[in-house]
Amino acid sequence: MADKKSTEMGLEDLFLDTVKDIYYAERQILKTLPKMAKAAQSPELKAGFEKHLQETEGQIERLEQVFEMLGKPARGKTCDAILGIIEEGKSIMDEFKGSIALDAGLVSSAQAVEHYEMARYGTLKAWAEQLGMSEAAALFDATLQEEIATDQALSQIGVTAVNQKAA
Amino acid sequence: MADKKSTEMGLEDLFLDTVKDIYYAERQILKTLPKMAKAAQSPELKAGFEKHLQETEGQIERLEQVFEMLGKPARGKTCDAILGIIEEGKSIMDEFKGSIALDAGLVSSAQAVEHYEMARYGTLKAWAEQLGMSEAAALFDATLQEEIATDQALSQIGVTAVNQKAA
Repeated sequence: MADKKSTEMGLEDLFLDTVKDIYYAERQILKTLPKMAKAAQSPELKAGFEKHLQETEGQIERLEQVFEMLGKPARGKTCDAILGIIEEGKSIMDEFKGSIALDAGLVSSAQAVEHYEMARYGTLKAWAEQLGMSEAAALFDATLQEEIATDQALSQIGVTAVNQKAA
Repeated sequence: MADKKSTEMGLEDLFLDTVKDIYYAERQILKTLPKMAKAAQSPELKAGFEKHLQETEGQIERLEQVFEMLGKPARGKTCDAILGIIEEGKSIMDEFKGSIALDAGLVSSAQAVEHYEMARYGTLKAWAEQLGMSEAAALFDATLQEEIATDQALSQIGVTAVNQKAA
């Protein structure tokens, strides 16, 4: 969108920008989840990451449907936010490798990722409604509900399996 | 904590690491909020950012109380996640400068910040409980409730004032 002046930009442009942002983010998450599943010590957490990997594939497909609705190619845009969140997760994996607190750190990192996604999909759903794109809004809502459920499941794993061990 | 092997690290270390992380993040947010308030077009959004600036000062004081409880100096640790989230917000401010969608972009960026904080304070509250630090848990919970309320207020501003204009 470098061909438009900033004063000419509208909500449609911001919407497309943000779809590209989360599309990039989801593909980064898809690459990172297998590493987190591999690192996880508790079978419950490992299974949680594997389940979310499959969900992420479906979430990417939903985004591709939205690109199609917009008549635009499915193309990501570098998302500094997710890169920073993932970078921080990697530091924790290094710093706590072999530690009894590793799983607690993995849960924490994963919840930061989930919250980023919840923020973006919540925003996109609201904008899709404003733009009269009710089908897109429904797709974003489906993903948003999955992210909320994943976040809650992680909290549960964090409290029951991980933290007690680490404490 | 470079003096400990990763296998010797426990939940206390992860807890302190994360307190340092969010302390750094809050101070970055404190520097960024005045810029967002200045950029905001709607008086409602401007006021929202100014209110959250004051809250952020109180949240930093709470973190300093936690450092005191831990007997550690209040010191941040570079938080790549918040740097990435803020960087993305700056790009939106540039790209949509003078545009009718600018406020929608500011709301979206601010909600990404809020969600990062919600993730971190939720985690810290759970860990404080696990570690038997009930006073710290109460401080984290107080901040968490403020972040949730700010996020909801932003959603409201986004829907009523901002998006309709931008659409």
